[in-house]
Amino acid sequence: MISINTYKEDFLSYLNEQIEVKEPLNLYEPIHYILQLGGKRLRPILAIMTCDLFGGDAKKAFDAALAIEVFHNFTLIHDDIMDSAPIRRGKETVHIKWNENTGILSGDAMMIMAYKCLENYEPVIYKKLMLLFNKTALEVCEGQQLDIDFETRNDVSIPEYITMITNKTSVLVAAAMKMGADIAGVDEKETEKIYNFGLNLGLAFQLQDDYLDTFGDQATFGKQIGGDIIEDKKTFLYLKALEVCNEVDKQRLLEMYNSNDTSKEKVAEVTHLFKRNKIEEITKAEIEKYSNQAFDVLKELAISEEKKAALRNFGFDLMKRTI
Amino acid sequence: MISINTYKEDFLSYLNEQIEVKEPLNLYEPIHYILQLGGKRLRPILAIMTCDLFGGDAKKAFDAALAIEVFHNFTLIHDDIMDSAPIRRGKETVHIKWNENTGILSGDAMMIMAYKCLENYEPVIYKKLMLLFNKTALEVCEGQQLDIDFETRNDVSIPEYITMITNKTSVLVAAAMKMGADIAGVDEKETEKIYNFGLNLGLAFQLQDDYLDTFGDQATFGKQIGGDIIEDKKTFLYLKALEVCNEVDKQRLLEMYNSNDTSKEKVAEVTHLFKRNKIEEITKAEIEKYSNQAFDVLKELAISEEKKAALRNFGFDLMKRTI
Repeated sequence: MISINTYKEDFLSYLNEQIEVKEPLNLYEPIHYILQLGGKRLRPILAIMTCDLFGGDAKKAFDAALAIEVFHNFTLIHDDIMDSAPIRRGKETVHIKWNENTGILSGDAMMIMAYKCLENYEPVIYKKLMLLFNKTALEVCEGQQLDIDFETRNDVSIPEYITMITNKTSVLVAAAMKMGADIAGVDEKETEKIYNFGLNLGLAFQLQDDYLDTFGDQATFGKQIGGDIIEDKKTFLYLKALEVCNEVDKQRLLEMYNSNDTSKEKVAEVTHLFKRNKIEEITKAEIEKYSNQAFDVLKELAISEEKKAALRNFGFDLMKRTI
Repeated sequence: MISINTYKEDFLSYLNEQIEVKEPLNLYEPIHYILQLGGKRLRPILAIMTCDLFGGDAKKAFDAALAIEVFHNFTLIHDDIMDSAPIRRGKETVHIKWNENTGILSGDAMMIMAYKCLENYEPVIYKKLMLLFNKTALEVCEGQQLDIDFETRNDVSIPEYITMITNKTSVLVAAAMKMGADIAGVDEKETEKIYNFGLNLGLAFQLQDDYLDTFGDQATFGKQIGGDIIEDKKTFLYLKALEVCNEVDKQRLLEMYNSNDTSKEKVAEVTHLFKRNKIEEITKAEIEKYSNQAFDVLKELAISEEKKAALRNFGFDLMKRTI
């Protein structure tokens, strides 16, 4: 069993070997650029670690890990265009550094490159991986569409929100882990469980993102605290507040989210309203619910206690993050 | 052996069966819309016909034909955004009828759907088809990038132009035919030949598009005659004229292509300049060259003369088109 840092370093070496800039430069340079922007590399690490923990050869999972990471970064390029986002990981987004057309086309090429990453697998496992990859990729698009649809809706329910983040975020985490297990040659019953673990971990992770954006520590959180409130993002916190707060608070919250106000005062007032309505505690409990569901799945896995502990610790570390 | 019209009708029935509108509607409606806009359906017909001519079960090629057609239409959505094109086949383009973000995301989903179309094939043939599909899809992106790059370059050579249209158009025609032959179970030597036939046919087809845009008959040509000249498109005609004409004509042509002039007078003058420099004849000869190269490949194929005639006639019909 290898350490998380070793997984990450080995994966990054592999990524650097595989992703080269070639002609036409305007197509491949943006791809190289976004893949070098850094990030936690959560998904590829999980793919490689899962393969390793299930007794497979970790190196055999590198191509699947790369496919997942390239696909994830393709979605970032296109999402940043759709959101008109100027900054990604502290650097200019692709459509700002180049232009929108370059962002669209390099993103398209990247999706195809993600598929190409899987070409070294033998036909039977190749098809198995591809079926999951296709299903997951389409779910991610559906999640992004729901996210866009929710922007103009005022009646989004919490279950709808969970469906959206499941598709937009969790299924790719889950698929990364299942692909690792598939490559290790584990039978379907077990790979379904690890998929389920990833799904719940992904949900906890995304809800924690919502939580930290408002209640995180500015010193350690990578982004600006309150960013979601400034952008009127309908996060779990916002939707839950609308659900639980009294009519006066509800009207005030709706009013502030329709005001185009981007002031510190708005962030402070909304945060205060959330706190008053126990949204901090409710969200923490929700994160814990999904974390616990993930850890419950672990118990059923047919791997050693030591290996279960490794997955549990990875989950704990992820959930303890303040960035 | 089935008639072209039967191939087309059967394919369209299959397409209608397979492509359904589902939730989220904003993701899937644009996909349904563009696939219903019509078109010659050249690529899927060629996939099905090739499978049939090589003794395969034509029905088995429907999924590959659909994958190719869905992929082709995905490229149309994204290309139309990049070109800011308002009209496609006489109807509003997706990003105009909806918006750019919808065009980007529906296009992405469509590319994944194209991949999903191949899922019914058995692992070994599935992987064979996928490898070709991936390679071709990436070449199409590279072709589109070259097309964009050429817009701002003043030194594009004819060989570079041929490389661009090979990637942007011909490889998908060639891949459609090779996939049909692969599904029929033909050995690699033969499928390489049919790929080569498709590549040359595709080039002749694209050059004819350039030709008809200036020298076609307005009564039968679907688009506006002179559209390429109005848009200062660097077609084969334009590049060849720069290569062969005298210094005075060259300077005048460059001047007109940098004038933002969209008048009938400009179309008339450029057309006259092309004619004076024998561009009409040179282009016709070039189209014939690629058509003949395609027909030469046919001679080497290990199929009956009757079947070769069917492919040759299809090529002739395509080259005789005035629309």
